[in-house]
Amino acid sequence: MTETPIFPRVGIIGIGLIGSSLARAMQLGRLAGEITIFDASAEARAAAQELDLGQVHDRLGDAIADADLVIVAVPIGAYAALGPQLARGLKPGAILSDVGSVKQAVVRDLGPHVPEGVHFIPGHPIAGTEHSGPRAGFAELFKGRWAILTPVPGTDSAATERLKALWERMGSMVEIMEPSHHDQVLAITSHLPHLIAYTIVDTATQLETSTQSEVIKFSASGFRDFTRIAASDPTMWRDIFLNNREAVLEILGRFTEDLTALQRAIRWGEGDKLFETFTRTREVRRGIIDAKQA
Amino acid sequence: MTETPIFPRVGIIGIGLIGSSLARAMQLGRLAGEITIFDASAEARAAAQELDLGQVHDRLGDAIADADLVIVAVPIGAYAALGPQLARGLKPGAILSDVGSVKQAVVRDLGPHVPEGVHFIPGHPIAGTEHSGPRAGFAELFKGRWAILTPVPGTDSAATERLKALWERMGSMVEIMEPSHHDQVLAITSHLPHLIAYTIVDTATQLETSTQSEVIKFSASGFRDFTRIAASDPTMWRDIFLNNREAVLEILGRFTEDLTALQRAIRWGEGDKLFETFTRTREVRRGIIDAKQA
Ligand SMILES: NC(=O)c1ccc[n+]([C@@H]2O[C@H](COP(=O)([O-])OP(=O)(O)OC[C@H]3O[C@@H](n4cnc5c(N)ncnc54)[C@H](OP(=O)(O)O)[C@@H]3O)[C@@H](O)[C@H]2O)c1
Ligand SMILES: NC(=O)c1ccc[n+]([C@@H]2O[C@H](COP(=O)([O-])OP(=O)(O)OC[C@H]3O[C@@H](n4cnc5c(N)ncnc54)[C@H](OP(=O)(O)O)[C@@H]3O)[C@@H](O)[C@H]2O)c1
Repeated sequence: MTETPIFPRVGIIGIGLIGSSLARAMQLGRLAGEITIFDASAEARAAAQELDLGQVHDRLGDAIADADLVIVAVPIGAYAALGPQLARGLKPGAILSDVGSVKQAVVRDLGPHVPEGVHFIPGHPIAGTEHSGPRAGFAELFKGRWAILTPVPGTDSAATERLKALWERMGSMVEIMEPSHHDQVLAITSHLPHLIAYTIVDTATQLETSTQSEVIKFSASGFRDFTRIAASDPTMWRDIFLNNREAVLEILGRFTEDLTALQRAIRWGEGDKLFETFTRTREVRRGIIDAKQA
Repeated sequence: MTETPIFPRVGIIGIGLIGSSLARAMQLGRLAGEITIFDASAEARAAAQELDLGQVHDRLGDAIADADLVIVAVPIGAYAALGPQLARGLKPGAILSDVGSVKQAVVRDLGPHVPEGVHFIPGHPIAGTEHSGPRAGFAELFKGRWAILTPVPGTDSAATERLKALWERMGSMVEIMEPSHHDQVLAITSHLPHLIAYTIVDTATQLETSTQSEVIKFSASGFRDFTRIAASDPTMWRDIFLNNREAVLEILGRFTEDLTALQRAIRWGEGDKLFETFTRTREVRRGIIDAKQA
């Protein structure tokens, strides 16, 4: 019954929602011989210890020494400072990967620090919740969800295959993609939806207090779904918008044009235009149901 | 065990999602002695018959004759034409109500036709799904949800109490409100969220085909929630926007301002502003969870 783990030793940097879910999924599937953990937060480290997610270290260097795979799972804004520390500690032949929600900025911030002989394969699981921290993680988070890998040109394909196998054993489907393409696709599927949800909930918070309490009372009529999205971690999302600026601004421009057209149709009572648009959008839902991502 | 029903005879006009849910909830709670049904669609009538939702009639007049309560549950755009027909058939002392998602337009379209001696108490359950038709209904739809009643000035309070009791027995909490206030509150909690969801999904449909299939694949990252909302019935939503124009345009104006401010913060890399906004919006979610509407 004892299968060989895919990696003898995996280091996880950042043991929040995603990092702790990785630890649990690898434990459940016996995918790592050993899991070593570092987090900048003493509280997170203590929780990781208590939850028995792996061997918790107080220094990043100790968590990555001798690791065959290191996965960075911290907010994007923290990557730049990690670069030099990772450079010092990674062993030749190791794989350096991550789970960050944008990919060009990761290549920009970590790429220059990757030592000779280390395989740099950034990644991003399309899975998450609005909760944060080590207690929010669960082993099934990645099951049935996509994981995107964006290996830099010239990456050893055997290393990519090995990382792909890890994600697949955690239940994910894996797609290989260019970092720039990743950032474009995610700008529409994730970053713009979050920006809009944050905006509409913020618009509501600026209403007079009496109306605000009614907004909460009657939120079941649509608003509620936006508040869940707009409850996502502020640090994570600030970093995403600051680090995927161009793609977000580009898709936001298109969205604003389309919204202006609908606004105009409402103002001028153009029912046919509204009906046409609302019929077209229905099809997309069917596509998602057919693709089993609903 | 046989309780007296609240209304001996209830007529439902329009046996779609909401109408059929009403019929089921009233059957389950034995709240109506008899349920009579009319729908303009022969298909819906046949389904209502097959599902045994009540006594199905081919003419509106037969469904409302002798009814103690008539509930209109058709798209808002169909109300104006119903007015004269209702005027002819309603018996003195009857209550005329509805479930339409806007309320000023209902008062405008039906109000002038309400015969002397009939109590006109428009209503709106804050409950629904993205599905339509008699087969989509279920008895528990209104449970734990709010129902808003907007009686016109001078309405007999005993009639309002009786209608309130009906909604409460179907599991709802009831709130009494001015039609204009209803339309304002719903513009932010429901109409704007739907407009925005329709827009973002429409923006996605206009991307090149290859990107579109990726949008569907990776929709779990936020987009998916919008597609569910944007799969709602096009007729119903066209009618809502055409009939709550002022309130929708007003709140849309505020939303656009707020979105422009965030866009600017992204463009100029103002992380603090983003962080502040994203922190503020989190509070709203807590309010909704505390109010048990999550
Ligand atoms: N949440 C999602 O839905 C989701 C989905 C896909 C991908 N991602 C990506 O996954 C990454 C982690 O997100 P998460 O949701 O797991 O975040 P999280 O729950 O907030 O956890 C991040 C952890 O990293 C720690 N940290 C911050 N800077 C660090 C550093 N320099 N060195 C070591 N640890 C550090 C944080 O400590 P402090 O709390 O003290 O800062 C925190 O404990 C982000 O890049 C995000 O874009 C998130
Ligand atoms: N869906 C929701 O989430 C929700 C929530 C709260 C309130 N509401 C309100 O409830 C009302 C009904 O919505 P729904 O979702 O139940 O709609 P639905 O499932 O589409 O059902 C409406 C039914 O009314 C029929 N109809 C149309 N015009 C008619 C007429 N003049 N006389 C008789 N029947 C007619 C329709 O037939 P055809 O299909 O042939 O037109 C259809 O069978 C709307 O005013 C809506 O604003 C909806």
